[in-house]
Amino acid sequence: KCPQIEHIYAAYHGVEGILAKTLFELGLENKQETAKLKSTPGAALGSCRYKLHADTDADFAKVLAVFQKYNIRYFLYNGGNDSMDTCSRLAAFFKQVDYECYVIGVPKTIDNDLVETDHCPGYASSARFISTMISEVACDANSYTSEQIIVFEIMGRNAGWLAASSSLARLTGFGPDLIYLPEVVFDIEKFIEEVQALRKQKRLIIIAVAESLHLADGRFITDLSGEDEEDDVFGHKQQGGAGHILAEILKKRLNTKVRGIEFSLLQRAANHLASEVDLCEAYQVGREAVLQAVNGVSGKMVTIKRKEADTYETTYGLVDLDEVANAEKLVPREWINEAGNDVTADFINYCLPLISNIDHAKAPLELKLTSNGLPDFAKLERNLL
Amino acid sequence: KCPQIEHIYAAYHGVEGILAKTLFELGLENKQETAKLKSTPGAALGSCRYKLHADTDADFAKVLAVFQKYNIRYFLYNGGNDSMDTCSRLAAFFKQVDYECYVIGVPKTIDNDLVETDHCPGYASSARFISTMISEVACDANSYTSEQIIVFEIMGRNAGWLAASSSLARLTGFGPDLIYLPEVVFDIEKFIEEVQALRKQKRLIIIAVAESLHLADGRFITDLSGEDEEDDVFGHKQQGGAGHILAEILKKRLNTKVRGIEFSLLQRAANHLASEVDLCEAYQVGREAVLQAVNGVSGKMVTIKRKEADTYETTYGLVDLDEVANAEKLVPREWINEAGNDVTADFINYCLPLISNIDHAKAPLELKLTSNGLPDFAKLERNLL
Repeated sequence: KCPQIEHIYAAYHGVEGILAKTLFELGLENKQETAKLKSTPGAALGSCRYKLHADTDADFAKVLAVFQKYNIRYFLYNGGNDSMDTCSRLAAFFKQVDYECYVIGVPKTIDNDLVETDHCPGYASSARFISTMISEVACDANSYTSEQIIVFEIMGRNAGWLAASSSLARLTGFGPDLIYLPEVVFDIEKFIEEVQALRKQKRLIIIAVAESLHLADGRFITDLSGEDEEDDVFGHKQQGGAGHILAEILKKRLNTKVRGIEFSLLQRAANHLASEVDLCEAYQVGREAVLQAVNGVSGKMVTIKRKEADTYETTYGLVDLDEVANAEKLVPREWINEAGNDVTADFINYCLPLISNIDHAKAPLELKLTSNGLPDFAKLERNLL
Repeated sequence: KCPQIEHIYAAYHGVEGILAKTLFELGLENKQETAKLKSTPGAALGSCRYKLHADTDADFAKVLAVFQKYNIRYFLYNGGNDSMDTCSRLAAFFKQVDYECYVIGVPKTIDNDLVETDHCPGYASSARFISTMISEVACDANSYTSEQIIVFEIMGRNAGWLAASSSLARLTGFGPDLIYLPEVVFDIEKFIEEVQALRKQKRLIIIAVAESLHLADGRFITDLSGEDEEDDVFGHKQQGGAGHILAEILKKRLNTKVRGIEFSLLQRAANHLASEVDLCEAYQVGREAVLQAVNGVSGKMVTIKRKEADTYETTYGLVDLDEVANAEKLVPREWINEAGNDVTADFINYCLPLISNIDHAKAPLELKLTSNGLPDFAKLERNLL
């Protein structure tokens, strides 16, 4: 509790909520419900995809009016690159118009692609869902005697962090045989050869692919259409994503049973498999942001720093919002094997501690509550100001 | 422990394993690993889809030879309708050739479509995964301000038990708005009208559909192709299942954002969300089968009976394998609402206790073990006899 803070307002649907003047007071919500926020998927305060208009001052003036009206002096905003951009521009604007408001960005993106932080809250929980689910499906599929190929499609635009996390499934004995990330140019013929080679050794082949794989000519797998040479392979433009398209290619070229599975929104929402490390760190980066803001820091994003130690330990740091906004951290090429179809041990060493269980006694958070075996989500009143 | 039983043999890949003479002794496996069988998805002993040849005696003679060789006098076989058919025919064969072997079927199918049993082990865990996952995705999607329609495709051939279980998600506050089961003929125009009506009230619409919906003329949704009147709607034959096809139809007819999500193999394999009731009952029906077999019962399947009580309680019974083999229990029409787009409270009352948490002290099983935050599957040696 900070004496400087009298009210905690939430903007309903992020910066859109500020512009629309739809704010509510978190402090007035039922404490039992706000305690459940940590086990409620998605932004319980509402999310948005709005980009502040740069060409007019209208958006900025509206934000200023709302902040002045409610005497808002600390502004914390969480999200990925786009949100850090919003945050960075608001910080610059407040400085320019000489309005005293301390702005801190809080990292949160399952894509794990913010620069200058070891990793981003959100990522570990999605990684745990992806690796657990792949291991369970592979274990189940392994019970049959017939040949099977399964292609899992995993989120991530330019960065393959989530697809790479599929490698952790191997620790259960049932992981992917091939992993393709968007950091490496994808070659369909080489892909078919790699799968073909595996068929000589294994009955069940598990493949993990990022949704955004692209070819040497720059086209995404999902861009492949009936208009070009691939026509014969596909027959027609596929509606599915990269996973289904690659499954279809394998089916036709190898004449065998291939199934495409898309994790879709599940990988983002599956809070029931949230990583404990992730829940703790998501809380801690928010706490750190509050402490820094009341100490007069502004225009920075909180970062997570990993200590050089035998066990996993972290501290928190700060980076200029300008450096983070619109930049993108990709999986380093040296964490991908030379053939471009797998990750290296360095990636596993990086990722595994993020999904591991931690000592409950040390965890500042209770784990999620359940009743009837179902999730117990926070139900906020959201009485607008 | 039964004194009559000296060895416990497992047929590797079911009846296929008997024919191929690939058996191994479960008693020789590491006890720590066999303890993990309850939290290992899929048939850890291997599964099969083999149907015994009826026209020749060769298959049956092979089974007999193996049983005689190892002095196998009790035969327990678990699965759905097809497995009960195999079981029923083997029981009849042993009787015919006067080989003393007690045959008991053990129900296990996520489809929940075996007759004469209140429900089938396997169903509750899939129901818990489906309802939890839908509630989490809906809660997450609810954070945006734009209109969204999400169509979830759920397994189940002729029976809609799994699709119906999506209704439990509503108890979290984030459930489906419309549920379509294969027990009711599907009408595309009526479907579009029902979604259109909801759009006037809601920003986010969640729809659950069974993979096997069929039209009045008998065609499955997945049979719709570019050759007929639906050509204009689809453009061409879809590769996806019913969920993606219906999402595509809505997208084109309503001109809005629609996403199809297929649970695919996840709903069958997601042991991490296994229902405690389900784990207990799966163990208990197996135990009951052993007790009945050593008591000289044969040609029967174990059934689960629900007591008429305020709290959920069950006992176990028996039914002739002949009555179960190849029969199919559908969701009763009176548990589906009149409009055919939802289930009734009677279904919820039936399904909810199956996924609820039970008193840990009463549970005869430990819950699954984890290390590193990942599942810890049983690793059997499988030293073949």
